[in-house]
Parts: sequence; C-alpha cells; structure tokens
Amino acid sequence: MSGVLYGVGLGPGDPELMTLKAHRLISSARVVAYPAPDTGESFARSIATDVISKDAREIPMVVPMRVDRFPAKQIYDEAAKTIAAELETGEDVVVLCEGDPFFYGSFMYLFERLSERFTCEVIPGVTSLTACASRLQRPLTSRNDVMTIIPGPLPDEAIRAHIDSAQALAIMKVGRHLPRLKALLQDMNLLDRAGYVERASLPSQKVLRLEDVADDAAPYFSMILIYKGDEAWTLPPSSSF
Amino acid sequence: MSGVLYGVGLGPGDPELMTLKAHRLISSARVVAYPAPDTGESFARSIATDVISKDAREIPMVVPMRVDRFPAKQIYDEAAKTIAAELETGEDVVVLCEGDPFFYGSFMYLFERLSERFTCEVIPGVTSLTACASRLQRPLTSRNDVMTIIPGPLPDEAIRAHIDSAQALAIMKVGRHLPRLKALLQDMNLLDRAGYVERASLPSQKVLRLEDVADDAAPYFSMILIYKGDEAWTLPPSSSF
Repeated sequence: MSGVLYGVGLGPGDPELMTLKAHRLISSARVVAYPAPDTGESFARSIATDVISKDAREIPMVVPMRVDRFPAKQIYDEAAKTIAAELETGEDVVVLCEGDPFFYGSFMYLFERLSERFTCEVIPGVTSLTACASRLQRPLTSRNDVMTIIPGPLPDEAIRAHIDSAQALAIMKVGRHLPRLKALLQDMNLLDRAGYVERASLPSQKVLRLEDVADDAAPYFSMILIYKGDEAWTLPPSSSF
Repeated sequence: MSGVLYGVGLGPGDPELMTLKAHRLISSARVVAYPAPDTGESFARSIATDVISKDAREIPMVVPMRVDRFPAKQIYDEAAKTIAAELETGEDVVVLCEGDPFFYGSFMYLFERLSERFTCEVIPGVTSLTACASRLQRPLTSRNDVMTIIPGPLPDEAIRAHIDSAQALAIMKVGRHLPRLKALLQDMNLLDRAGYVERASLPSQKVLRLEDVADDAAPYFSMILIYKGDEAWTLPPSSSF
C-alpha cells in the first residue's frame, strides 16, 4: 500500500494563517519536502518551522532562483523520484507550499509527475491575494464584480485591456516591473485606486498606496491591487498602514 | 478605549480549513456576530460551532435570502448599531465570515459602516476558489497565466469575452444560470475543460466534470472552473472524484 502525497498550503507567511488541517498534517508528518533556494532559507519551511517534527525526514528541493531556467525540469524529475521512493515504501509525504498549492504554485511540477501513480490530496491555503487585501484595508471584490489576476511580466497592452474590462484587479509578481506598471496605471488615471503590498503578513511586510512607492524595483512577493468597481471604497493614506 | 472589530474568514466549510488565527480569535471571543438566513441555520456559524465559547454573546444578523432585496441596507444599519454599542463598551467583536471576508463577502457591509470609527482587523481565509480547485484535482493557474473570476449572473456576451482573454477562469454563483452557462461553454468547445464543484469541502460536496452535470439548477455555493492555458492538465473522469 503506497503512501499519500499531500500538497499542503501554508498561507502567505504568518504561521498563524496556516489552516488547522495543514497544522495537523505537518506536525504528524514523518517525511516533509519543500522548495528551497540555492542560497539561504526555504520560505515554505520557515513558515512551518515550529510545526515540523524533530524526527521528520526532510527533502529540500533546491531550485535556483534564476527566472530564465524556471521550471527546472531536471530538479523536479529528481525530486519526484526521491518522493516516489518514499511513497512506495508506504510512507506519506507532506509537501510544504507557500500560499495555496494550486494557485501559481510550484507544487504543480510534482503533481504532474506523481498524481497518476499515487493518491494525492491538496490542502488549500490562504492566498497572497486575500492576504494583501486584508492589509490594504479595502475589500477585494463585491456583488457581481469581475476580478482579474494578471502576472506583472505581461506587456503593457495586454495589462491595459484586462484592466479596462474588470472591476477588481491584482497584478502579481511585480518585481522589476514596478516602474513600468506604475507609469501604466498613472496613464490610466488609476494610481489613486492602486494599493501596493509586499510580503503580506510577514514582519517585513510593506503596505503603501502605489503612488507613494518610491522604489525602482519590488521583490518577487509583491502585489498591486486595483479597485475600479461601483463601490466607493477609497484607500487609506499610506501613513495609516 | 473601544474594542476591535474582527472580520474573520472561516474558509469554505470544512472546520479544519479554518486558520489557526481564526481559531484563536473565535475561541476567545466574548461577542460573535454572523449572517443568518430567515429560516434555518447560519452557514458561517455552523463552520465555527465547535469553537465558539459557551459563554459568548451571539449577534445573528438575519438577512432574508431573496436576491432582489440584497443588500438589505436596513438590516446592516441595525447590525452595525448593535455591534458599535459593544465596541464602545471596550468589547471586541468577532464577525464570522464564510470564505474570506473581502472576497465577495457580506462583511464589507459592516466594514463600510464601522471601519472609520473603530479599529478593524480582517483575517483572511481560504476561498472557495482554491478549495474547488483542490477538489477537482487540477491546478488553477501557473506561470504567467491570467485568471479571471466571473459572477454567473453576467450576460453571455460579457462572459464569452472574458473567457476568450484569460487562461484560467472561475464562474461563481452558478445557481439557476447552470443550463445557460453549460450551453455557452459547449458552444465555445470548452465543455471538456470545465469542472463543476458545489459545496466544496463539506460532507454534501459534489464534484463532476461539467459535461456530466445533469441538473437544471445549482445551489448558490457552486462554481465552474475552466483551464485553457498551455499546460496539458486534463480533468479526471467524474467517477474518480
């Protein structure tokens, strides 16, 4: 009897935003796997650090942080092989996933390699999307709003068309695209409706109205939220966050 | 010193998908408020029922379930007044919210009435969006996908345009629009890429490929998820859910 592959969402970063189910599965796991950068700490592991059992066997999946080489096919092939070996002995494997495993998550690279051979259960988590909205003190969507989630690397014209046709928008993975996105939103007269959040719910989080963000670049874990629907919600001043 | 208004996301229905923070705040709350239908049980309260302290004072906000009268301005005016009276005595009030308070949630009606006068903290929760994806055993989005969330009541032409311009789509609040939406997706040749989930994570949940859904109507808590991006993800057969 093979073990079960669990893809467990950990939420946006604050360990208290983990679900009770994630907590139960991680604390009783004998094998945990997680993505890790080639230098420094694994973000996913850092969220769960107080929950992982001292006796657990750990499988770090080292993925270099260079965008060009992503997805690193060979790394996931190797990791899937290591995890499959555990599952075949009947051991369950808990994969730690930032946010939600199925929402822009790297868990899909394991899922597509292993879910046909093994039972796989995905535990949804709090996404950065709603975590960022909670920090901006403004609802994300209401009633019959259309909401569109746009990756920041998309070209201006594509982003502009999506912004035109939705009431609520999130631009994710802002990173080095920050100045371009800010200029675009200024051109669309939406700068005062745009909020900026990086590292939501972590001690290092940063929350500002987008017009008050002075930086030339943002980290990968950053988001711009725009609301242009009928509700009269305005953003509080940056000083109030 | 006034109390704090907490808008606490409870997740999609399974009490174990509540966050640790929601659990802590609810279990120590002396006053809890929640939306309730005019007949039958409050869904939000049912998720938290084992966590609410026996000594807690409860404020049900009875909102009739007729769509035409929503939002029931007078009901939220009254509820905000009752909750404000508690906050003014220094008591914190925990408002129980299905899913996430700021993602199509009725909590906004309290938030817009109370957040300027009182400190308000929103605790994000797992949304039905990722809960449904986990049940369908298919990732929601990957890499640079654009994802659009569409309310089912929108007219066909608007829905069609959004489907054309995104890789991942969720149609929420399917309800009585089910036959129309199914016909639209068939016309767009997307029926075999569409999954259907109702009451995700509850014992009464229903998970099917959309083409196998025979019903003429769906409950309010139902969703269609479509993936038309580059990844080769297919839906498992309905019998496997």
